[in-house]
Amino acid sequence: MDFTEIIGFVAAVCTTISFVPQVVRIWRTKSTKDISLGMFLIFCAGVILWLTYGLLLNNLPIIVANTVTLFLILTILSFKIRYK
Amino acid sequence: MDFTEIIGFVAAVCTTISFVPQVVRIWRTKSTKDISLGMFLIFCAGVILWLTYGLLLNNLPIIVANTVTLFLILTILSFKIRYK
Repeated sequence: MDFTEIIGFVAAVCTTISFVPQVVRIWRTKSTKDISLGMFLIFCAGVILWLTYGLLLNNLPIIVANTVTLFLILTILSFKIRYK
Repeated sequence: MDFTEIIGFVAAVCTTISFVPQVVRIWRTKSTKDISLGMFLIFCAGVILWLTYGLLLNNLPIIVANTVTLFLILTILSFKIRYK
């Protein structure tokens, strides 16, 4: 793994795990008033398309990162619907 | 542009513009209580790394998408600091 690949790998880890603190926050507060449903719906559509892109290219890092992100985004969306 | 490239392009557009509804929502409500600072800080670090990755590869789509995303994320972060 060269320097550029390491940068890309750490970038993917950051943009994937970043949603964990948001999941934890909602889990604790049960409040989602300030969170935009539109943001998470459009982001979810984007992640599904990234996952499709990864599957078409058979690119494992894209597939893994977007599967984890999709799971976290769907959790936040289910919280948004459950806790108004 | 083949089918796979179109999927990747639409995916990038979605995950980039998704932050616009969140910016608009905070602009209207002036409230960011439910938004996780940790999420946007880690995501911001990730986007800076993606931008670095794009610059290292001289890949214009990655550079453009992440520059726009960085601008939107920094806007949300400045709102988060301004409106508690």
